[in-house]
Amino acid sequence: MKAGKIIFFLLCLNLVSNLAIAAGPPTCPADVASDCASDSGEWKGEFFPDIPKIKYEGPSSKNHLSFKWYNAEEEILGRKMKDWMRFSVAFWHTFRGTGGDPFGAPTKMWPWEDGTNSLAMAKRRMRANFEFLNKLGVDKWCFHDRDIAPDGKTIEESNANLDEVVALAKELQGTKIHPLWGTAQLFHHPRYMHGGATSPELGVYAYSAAQVKKAMEVTHYLGGENYVFWGGREGYQTLLNTDMERELNHMARFMEAAVAYKKKIGFNGTLLIEPKPQEPTKHQYDWDAATAANFLRKYGLIDEFKLNIECNHATLAGHSCHHELETARINGILGNIDANTGDPQIGWDTDQFMMDVGEATLVMLSVIKNGGLAPGGFNFDAKLRRESTDVEDIFIAHVAGMDTLARGLRNAAKLIEDGSLAELVRKRYQSFDSEIGAQIEAGKGDFDMLEKKAMQWGEPKVSSAKQELAEMIFQAAI
Amino acid sequence: MKAGKIIFFLLCLNLVSNLAIAAGPPTCPADVASDCASDSGEWKGEFFPDIPKIKYEGPSSKNHLSFKWYNAEEEILGRKMKDWMRFSVAFWHTFRGTGGDPFGAPTKMWPWEDGTNSLAMAKRRMRANFEFLNKLGVDKWCFHDRDIAPDGKTIEESNANLDEVVALAKELQGTKIHPLWGTAQLFHHPRYMHGGATSPELGVYAYSAAQVKKAMEVTHYLGGENYVFWGGREGYQTLLNTDMERELNHMARFMEAAVAYKKKIGFNGTLLIEPKPQEPTKHQYDWDAATAANFLRKYGLIDEFKLNIECNHATLAGHSCHHELETARINGILGNIDANTGDPQIGWDTDQFMMDVGEATLVMLSVIKNGGLAPGGFNFDAKLRRESTDVEDIFIAHVAGMDTLARGLRNAAKLIEDGSLAELVRKRYQSFDSEIGAQIEAGKGDFDMLEKKAMQWGEPKVSSAKQELAEMIFQAAI
Amino acid sequence: MKAGKIIFFLLCLNLVSNLAIAAGPPTCPADVASDCASDSGEWKGEFFPDIPKIKYEGPSSKNHLSFKWYNAEEEILGRKMKDWMRFSVAFWHTFRGTGGDPFGAPTKMWPWEDGTNSLAMAKRRMRANFEFLNKLGVDKWCFHDRDIAPDGKTIEESNANLDEVVALAKELQGTKIHPLWGTAQLFHHPRYMHGGATSPELGVYAYSAAQVKKAMEVTHYLGGENYVFWGGREGYQTLLNTDMERELNHMARFMEAAVAYKKKIGFNGTLLIEPKPQEPTKHQYDWDAATAANFLRKYGLIDEFKLNIECNHATLAGHSCHHELETARINGILGNIDANTGDPQIGWDTDQFMMDVGEATLVMLSVIKNGGLAPGGFNFDAKLRRESTDVEDIFIAHVAGMDTLARGLRNAAKLIEDGSLAELVRKRYQSFDSEIGAQIEAGKGDFDMLEKKAMQWGEPKVSSAKQELAEMIFQAAI
Amino acid sequence: MKAGKIIFFLLCLNLVSNLAIAAGPPTCPADVASDCASDSGEWKGEFFPDIPKIKYEGPSSKNHLSFKWYNAEEEILGRKMKDWMRFSVAFWHTFRGTGGDPFGAPTKMWPWEDGTNSLAMAKRRMRANFEFLNKLGVDKWCFHDRDIAPDGKTIEESNANLDEVVALAKELQGTKIHPLWGTAQLFHHPRYMHGGATSPELGVYAYSAAQVKKAMEVTHYLGGENYVFWGGREGYQTLLNTDMERELNHMARFMEAAVAYKKKIGFNGTLLIEPKPQEPTKHQYDWDAATAANFLRKYGLIDEFKLNIECNHATLAGHSCHHELETARINGILGNIDANTGDPQIGWDTDQFMMDVGEATLVMLSVIKNGGLAPGGFNFDAKLRRESTDVEDIFIAHVAGMDTLARGLRNAAKLIEDGSLAELVRKRYQSFDSEIGAQIEAGKGDFDMLEKKAMQWGEPKVSSAKQELAEMIFQAAI
Repeated sequence: MKAGKIIFFLLCLNLVSNLAIAAGPPTCPADVASDCASDSGEWKGEFFPDIPKIKYEGPSSKNHLSFKWYNAEEEILGRKMKDWMRFSVAFWHTFRGTGGDPFGAPTKMWPWEDGTNSLAMAKRRMRANFEFLNKLGVDKWCFHDRDIAPDGKTIEESNANLDEVVALAKELQGTKIHPLWGTAQLFHHPRYMHGGATSPELGVYAYSAAQVKKAMEVTHYLGGENYVFWGGREGYQTLLNTDMERELNHMARFMEAAVAYKKKIGFNGTLLIEPKPQEPTKHQYDWDAATAANFLRKYGLIDEFKLNIECNHATLAGHSCHHELETARINGILGNIDANTGDPQIGWDTDQFMMDVGEATLVMLSVIKNGGLAPGGFNFDAKLRRESTDVEDIFIAHVAGMDTLARGLRNAAKLIEDGSLAELVRKRYQSFDSEIGAQIEAGKGDFDMLEKKAMQWGEPKVSSAKQELAEMIFQAAI
Repeated sequence: MKAGKIIFFLLCLNLVSNLAIAAGPPTCPADVASDCASDSGEWKGEFFPDIPKIKYEGPSSKNHLSFKWYNAEEEILGRKMKDWMRFSVAFWHTFRGTGGDPFGAPTKMWPWEDGTNSLAMAKRRMRANFEFLNKLGVDKWCFHDRDIAPDGKTIEESNANLDEVVALAKELQGTKIHPLWGTAQLFHHPRYMHGGATSPELGVYAYSAAQVKKAMEVTHYLGGENYVFWGGREGYQTLLNTDMERELNHMARFMEAAVAYKKKIGFNGTLLIEPKPQEPTKHQYDWDAATAANFLRKYGLIDEFKLNIECNHATLAGHSCHHELETARINGILGNIDANTGDPQIGWDTDQFMMDVGEATLVMLSVIKNGGLAPGGFNFDAKLRRESTDVEDIFIAHVAGMDTLARGLRNAAKLIEDGSLAELVRKRYQSFDSEIGAQIEAGKGDFDMLEKKAMQWGEPKVSSAKQELAEMIFQAAI
Repeated sequence: MKAGKIIFFLLCLNLVSNLAIAAGPPTCPADVASDCASDSGEWKGEFFPDIPKIKYEGPSSKNHLSFKWYNAEEEILGRKMKDWMRFSVAFWHTFRGTGGDPFGAPTKMWPWEDGTNSLAMAKRRMRANFEFLNKLGVDKWCFHDRDIAPDGKTIEESNANLDEVVALAKELQGTKIHPLWGTAQLFHHPRYMHGGATSPELGVYAYSAAQVKKAMEVTHYLGGENYVFWGGREGYQTLLNTDMERELNHMARFMEAAVAYKKKIGFNGTLLIEPKPQEPTKHQYDWDAATAANFLRKYGLIDEFKLNIECNHATLAGHSCHHELETARINGILGNIDANTGDPQIGWDTDQFMMDVGEATLVMLSVIKNGGLAPGGFNFDAKLRRESTDVEDIFIAHVAGMDTLARGLRNAAKLIEDGSLAELVRKRYQSFDSEIGAQIEAGKGDFDMLEKKAMQWGEPKVSSAKQELAEMIFQAAI
Repeated sequence: MKAGKIIFFLLCLNLVSNLAIAAGPPTCPADVASDCASDSGEWKGEFFPDIPKIKYEGPSSKNHLSFKWYNAEEEILGRKMKDWMRFSVAFWHTFRGTGGDPFGAPTKMWPWEDGTNSLAMAKRRMRANFEFLNKLGVDKWCFHDRDIAPDGKTIEESNANLDEVVALAKELQGTKIHPLWGTAQLFHHPRYMHGGATSPELGVYAYSAAQVKKAMEVTHYLGGENYVFWGGREGYQTLLNTDMERELNHMARFMEAAVAYKKKIGFNGTLLIEPKPQEPTKHQYDWDAATAANFLRKYGLIDEFKLNIECNHATLAGHSCHHELETARINGILGNIDANTGDPQIGWDTDQFMMDVGEATLVMLSVIKNGGLAPGGFNFDAKLRRESTDVEDIFIAHVAGMDTLARGLRNAAKLIEDGSLAELVRKRYQSFDSEIGAQIEAGKGDFDMLEKKAMQWGEPKVSSAKQELAEMIFQAAI
């Protein structure tokens, strides 16, 4: 293909692919809808005129647009609910989700969308975002660079677009709102089809670096508290054409450079790796928490990163979400939670809002054990079902998601205050709360000594694990 | 939303969503590439100038663009290879596959694409299809209505578009080529988000009927031998909002109407249901072969339909492809095979070309037992990996896929001619080749008689199942 | 192997294999434990001296050995809770479960077990069963023939053993207790390694018939309301050595003979097939509800059988339990529920007690829609975890399991009384509550008419599916 | 339960549980079978009189009891086949496998078994093992302590039993045969129901230490080249009752003590951890290669251990076997392979003999890249299907398994000698074989420099991944 053709292709591609997949749906053009203002991105009045500010009304309320369990200022276990939860809205699902799927076209027809991926539209969307945050009562948001501002023909142009939108976001944030985290989208553009940091193409590695550099800068500028790496394309489709060792080495070099750059610019946010086992790749290098931890330890990066655990990714990896949270916590690297859920019978990422109170209770037990998540929090990396097409559905989904986790927090607190589950666990291990136990735990239990003790003690007594009792206690708290 | 806005939306949507997902990639605009002619869809010279007609060169050839195992005219078990295989190219994957996935933009930049979903482009693409078929030496193809011609603003306009492209296809087909099957695309447009025949919206049910009616007509016109129903959206995302019983009743009514219409227009092709367990829905009503058979029996349709078994769908349903083929065969409804494969560790449809000779051998054993597939055949419902972006990759994939199945046929013939596997099976059941066995098989083995025999015979002798020996024999034939 | 050796082998095998797997654990021999009486199976005093009769104490009770939600005589939706639930204890898990698993030895050391599989021990165990039922307040039980009485050297001896234990059970049942269902164990003995009704050995087919004949007789004698077929070995390990078509024909002949025998002896109980996808076989012929229904329809048996849906089997087949219940219900064959649950991350049957209130609520929604389950009910086909080794754990597990389902019933009633979920569903389908809708549903919607309507109506309006709202409403009821 | 009862229980349990699960099947008692000698464990003549020594006869042989591909002394890529393969027979599957499964009794009736777990029987079995090794032409074997010698009432008695059998094994080994590895069985006895090193019971921890100490000693004494840890019970069933952090700390202390003891006794063999994701536990701490590596790194043990990768465990963890081998290799810890395979549709460990040539070729590609496995090798951790009950089946399975891997080696060598697959991979990464590439790989590619380069280079060229071509090349070698 000739160079001219390639350039033209890239131009089209930018337009079309953004529209199609990451972009907002092609709805409501300015010249048709009366609410839509001019090309300048202005929008008269509210984006969500029928939606009031969501308030706490308690469990007996029948109002779908109220919180039944989330009461931001209420104290639970000595901390305000909002400080436990640190909720964040994901810009991409909420404002760039189109309802498109591998078998179908976009389905969302939000009134404020004009069907373009223009800068003006990007700004209009940003205004909608802040109205949404305000009405929902959430003061954090998360974004990918390319979600909030259109790709340009060159890095310079992309950066300029980003700067323009970020300036507006900064203004709209005011003093109360800021990003929970920012990140760079290194998976959508075809240049990243073989990966970013692990692409076999040197040019793509460099391009990724440039994009992460800028995304980190704007995250810092907006007061972001964390920066996330989700390596959706950092993996392989088949080992037959892959040099996995070389790719992992490249990934480590990339992460080292990111750490160095973070320090250089004085960004104090936490760097977070988000594990996922597969999809879109057959195998993603950050498969699960343990795999990511192994990578970080192997390359001496364990003190520089934490993990962003996503519940749907956990289950795709064959783990419960609770397991992944505990694995991260025990390794000292639980940094943030992408609050969603999958379908237990589905083998791909459905990114549903977490609606199961039992699961939410387990999640909150981990969070409490971790002493909270700050500077991380809960990001709603969750999307409306493709078939949910009313504007109010966006609110309903977030309200239900927030309420579910809030109810989980209340239940977890109940369990902790009741104490009988903790007591059941304590008792199981009490034989180690002894002199020999302490000796073993201090690394002084050699095989000779232990054999002698074992012979002396005879057949050990082994107690019931009381799993059904533990489950009964757990369910009673729900 | 006001009516005017909806209409505009649908206009945009048609343009954009087709481009984005089902449509060809936005490449090679006419005014850039010298090979691209005018808007009329003309294209000078060959579409695949660097690809010669693929020939059989035998297993020792190192030429990627030759057949090593598929020798169309060679006889195997008394039938020409081409008559066993009845290969067909899937228009959608081959000419409308863009490389887009849920996380990424299109990656394919085929030189003949101009980035539009115009009628002119549709015709140009159809010419490419026939050059491809000719170079590959395949005389059947499969299509969805909306793959080959653009959606219009109304049914009438869509039908007119379809007629225009179909007329060209008819001309290009000549006397040797015709569709293995045609079908209607009832899953891509947002109107089908809740299903077609099972949509809760009456208007969508009617729209589906209109679309199937037309698709069946053009399939008939083109000399298609079968007509396929893949109910990608006929299922549910959650039972909480679904009346499954009513939806299944609707689906049955729809199928009855399809049978009646087929007879009315004198279309003698086989109607095929294509089972798939899920994706895009959480549950698809045609989950697997047994589920589809139960539906057909319940509604008295078992004699009017056969099944189109897709290997990747089989494994997503928890079965081997061989199992699904045998289930269909035993129920008398094995009609066609969508020849592809999945990844054993992946929980979504990857539609890869079948490259495993062992699997292909099992598939061919079923086909031979079925006495072949005619009027069905093997449709390559398989797509290039997103990262395979050379034009020659389209050929390499089809050549490898055809060769794998051809090798499977050769191996299956070897196994059958050797006879030792069949003998092992015959021996296992020989106790039923007796008088009492015949009595039981004739439905005359009542419990009183059987108890008497069991008491008389004493403890039965039970032989080894010889699984490892069967596997050894099987592997030796590969 | 010589005949003498085989006979001896079978003798040992009977002793050992029963001990090891199906049998009670080798504990508390009569001559050691003071509570254990003589060889006659007598046992002085209570089996569960530390466990009181379980009473309803309401949700605020902290007593593990009380019901918090199950209040047998309380009316819910116009029916007593006990009549909705019709709970049954599974004799095998409760009294023959040893805690053995593929990697480990038995772990249970129940005081009443003497380590043998003697007739005397069988009777002692039966007495324990009835004390358990009485203390739990459950008046139904389920059994396999070989669980309750030891295998003999011949069919005659096995039958005699069974008669002896059954006579005692009949006496202990009194007037209030009877089996929910009985069944024959056609999977444990090595003679059944290739199946019972689908064994390639004629002698095994006959043996199976003799065993089912007797098991049906004793079920009838004890007043059992149903008879179950779980075809654990009716399937295949590899298709390479299997004639699946012949095996399925044999299975159908066997089921026909069972129906005939049921009528002959005047047994009016329901015959139930229990679907399971796999384990111990690679593929079980009764894979799921739809597969079983297809089998029944194909062989004209659909009116003679219903299904026993087991939740853990549903999830192993890739379905939610709710889906399988609804599939059975819609096909008119929902007969009984094996109330257990699996682990969403585990690929084998864990048979855990159902402890999830959300799942229980969905289950009860199906049961209510079905108008209840009678003459079927809920059988606790659930076992203590291997590590739960206290006698009280048996009670705790059953109490929690009963309470979970009772709570599910209360929640389901709340949802039904509230009505908003049903209203959401009704509205989705209301376009079919029209003249054209009625015409379609009556089978009079041909393609010509539908096309005309579709053209006339133009682009159909498609509403939001409101899944998140449905989930919010559902969760609020929990 | 009183102490007396417990002791009695343990006595019975030892007898019964060993019989039932780990023990040989209860066949051929000495007083029935003429070939069975006295209680002394003597056995006249051959154990496998009908089986000749297995010889290489080449691919055209129809003799099931011959090698078609494994030719021990033949050189492939400069090394004898036997030195690449280093095959080992697993004593447990081959001589203690009974065919019992969770739903069924033992099915194997080997003529040499007398139905006991006596010391005499243990010795007889050991003689059978060595005849088997000799006839198969394999000079390595693997064992668990409790497989080869019966458990005693005390550690001392167990050790004495072990010593007696080990002395015989040492004698039978002669100069040519020795263990590939030994290990301790810390999962079968009920004392280990909560784990060994991770049991919450201090006494069990000590008991485990005593058992590993002894097993390591006898492995060393027999000339074993490796020692394996498979932590089948080191994990959890539910996090509700588990202190995962404390358990992992205990496991690390245990491993440290094992390293210290190895050094103390001068055992130079490699310590191997065998990852498995689950079964029997819901979660096993050594989930997969990456998880085990993370554990080893976290506790500073990465240089003291390697991994024993089992193919069926890999697939249960959601990985291909090839992936796990490559992950271990890249982390520098690929030590041994347990050569088996699972069923892609089954969610538990089936431990089948690897019969797929494609999979074997991938495995051998990793082995060759690793420079071989020594001092590790291939252990046949694979068992006959339950339904394979002829003595010859044991040989057929091993012959087929060895041939499959040998054929994999030949194919891998063909691929390597052909070179086109390696060339395809080399080309993909060639942009990094440049100055900037070298700079990045040396850790000197900072973001500022990379951004500058990216801006200067413009849109990077991204080549096709050629996956289908790679698959075509791979399949051609098979």
